[in-house]
Amino acid sequence: MPVDDTSRDERRVTISAIAREAGVSVPTVSRVVNGRSDVAPQTRQRIEDLLRRYGYSRRTNHSTPTARLIDLVFNDLDSPWAVEIIRGVEDVAHGAGVGTVVSATHREPAAARQWLQNLRARESDGVILVISPLDSPMQEELHRLNVPMVVVDPAGGSPLETPTIGASNWAGGLSAVDHLIELGHRRIGFVAGPRTLLCSRARLDGYRAGLEAAGIGIDDALIREGDFYHESGFHGGRELLELDDPPTAIFASSDQMAFGVYEAVRQHGLRIPDDVSVIGFDDLPEARWSSPPLTTVRQPLAQMGVLAARNVLRLASGDGLESPRVELATSLTVRESTTSPPAPPADHEH
Amino acid sequence: MPVDDTSRDERRVTISAIAREAGVSVPTVSRVVNGRSDVAPQTRQRIEDLLRRYGYSRRTNHSTPTARLIDLVFNDLDSPWAVEIIRGVEDVAHGAGVGTVVSATHREPAAARQWLQNLRARESDGVILVISPLDSPMQEELHRLNVPMVVVDPAGGSPLETPTIGASNWAGGLSAVDHLIELGHRRIGFVAGPRTLLCSRARLDGYRAGLEAAGIGIDDALIREGDFYHESGFHGGRELLELDDPPTAIFASSDQMAFGVYEAVRQHGLRIPDDVSVIGFDDLPEARWSSPPLTTVRQPLAQMGVLAARNVLRLASGDGLESPRVELATSLTVRESTTSPPAPPADHEH
Repeated sequence: MPVDDTSRDERRVTISAIAREAGVSVPTVSRVVNGRSDVAPQTRQRIEDLLRRYGYSRRTNHSTPTARLIDLVFNDLDSPWAVEIIRGVEDVAHGAGVGTVVSATHREPAAARQWLQNLRARESDGVILVISPLDSPMQEELHRLNVPMVVVDPAGGSPLETPTIGASNWAGGLSAVDHLIELGHRRIGFVAGPRTLLCSRARLDGYRAGLEAAGIGIDDALIREGDFYHESGFHGGRELLELDDPPTAIFASSDQMAFGVYEAVRQHGLRIPDDVSVIGFDDLPEARWSSPPLTTVRQPLAQMGVLAARNVLRLASGDGLESPRVELATSLTVRESTTSPPAPPADHEH
Repeated sequence: MPVDDTSRDERRVTISAIAREAGVSVPTVSRVVNGRSDVAPQTRQRIEDLLRRYGYSRRTNHSTPTARLIDLVFNDLDSPWAVEIIRGVEDVAHGAGVGTVVSATHREPAAARQWLQNLRARESDGVILVISPLDSPMQEELHRLNVPMVVVDPAGGSPLETPTIGASNWAGGLSAVDHLIELGHRRIGFVAGPRTLLCSRARLDGYRAGLEAAGIGIDDALIREGDFYHESGFHGGRELLELDDPPTAIFASSDQMAFGVYEAVRQHGLRIPDDVSVIGFDDLPEARWSSPPLTTVRQPLAQMGVLAARNVLRLASGDGLESPRVELATSLTVRESTTSPPAPPADHEH
């Protein structure tokens, strides 16, 4: 692993500076930094305050990872991409001789507190949060424990100072629409993700940008809001197919919603892709197994896990990161759910 | 958690017996059992030999779990049911204040050795193997480390002495065929799992038993061998549909193979369930999202994880298990991929 010499030097200087300012020896500061108990409470407090003031809380805890464990924390393990991220993280950690502790907080503060308590009872070299499942007080607590933290945030827009791994949602949305326009589609429906997540807005903006670049006006009737889950894709797809002038292609902002659109198309007695093209976003393993196999925007989820693990291990070693926020590229995976639009009927027939 | 008093008493008696036989005090035996280092090497060796002879290697290591970690080890994390099992294990462990370390060995001895080395460098209260990804020497090593072990084996037929959690494969195969026969099917195709796994044979035997009970002869032309993965379901399904007298229903021995059959049916220009009924085995989350939603035999994978975690924590506490081998019931989940067979054509037309 390459070493960032700048941050190392900065660290050395600042530890001495803190020692001078606190009127103690460098080893005393080190003892506090390393969480040892043999420092008088008042002195510890003074040093901790200085460490915090100099932004030291996370970087300098361990010079080498000691617990040989990192924590990977999800809201829910039934998130369809959980296992992809686990795979990436485990691969790096395993190779580094570090175990991956997987937990779920179920969006319940009590479960998150329990997790934090479990963490305190053993130790952890670093924590990877997948879409931040901890509220601010919990994150404060993690900072206080001096555990390095990285957020994997395929949803985008985590407002923290924590290092983040995301994916290029806007460009992904654009590439999906470009693909459909190239196939000849002009009426392209969109089932969006929840409005509250930045990634949904980025994908929607990519969709709009693609249409505008092709000189196709935005028809708000063609845009439905979902929640990334199957059911909402089914409802959004059904509403779009029931329009007087239905779309010839539907872009769903998640694979699961795309599968919901599949079911809406089937129940309408139509065929994919002959009657309607469908495109998703994620490229879950299931996208290959759907019938027809799904054209979709690939998020490199396992790769995001790989990078998160590398970064958290770097932080655990006291090294800096090249960039605190990284966005990995999305890419279009063309399979069999998209084709040219059907020839328009000579006359309207319903 | 209920305590098995018999095994507790047996344990106490035997520790005294071992102390007597080794000519040492009971606390000395305890020190060896608990892995402490303050026992002379020769004495330790003598006690360890006796412990092994009395089958003590796993039960009596910890009186309470101390590492606050259990290990969950897979061959591959891309197994479609990995995340279901993780969910069940994590749920129990989290509640017990224990972290779940997830690892994959990728069927590579080097990765398995690395895992064992990582385990030695920290500690573990117990290990759950999902279909045994460790060869015999590795398992011996785990025994030697006195780490309790449970095997989750949806594939069935693990030949170890290790406690095992499985599922009722034969009864599951039977229930799928019963359902199709009740709907009126007589020609029922079967895409089997790999011949080498006992669970495949159990499901196949369940299929045969169902047909025989209904007085329907077994037609070997209707049975294809797959490997549980999508591609083999596709090929098996295609071969069945190309028969001169094709089946009206196809039972695939895994959900992933059922999705492959879906694709074969689609490419044949047929519809599920109107032209062909399809039924799977597993009830992965994807079964709900397929189009049409898949009728399938449910394996309680998360529940198997729950039970594995409970049992390994019990063993870690020095308690015995009610039963070393448990088979959880499978159950039929009826969705929309099965219906009555189409009315036979008045004349053969191909």
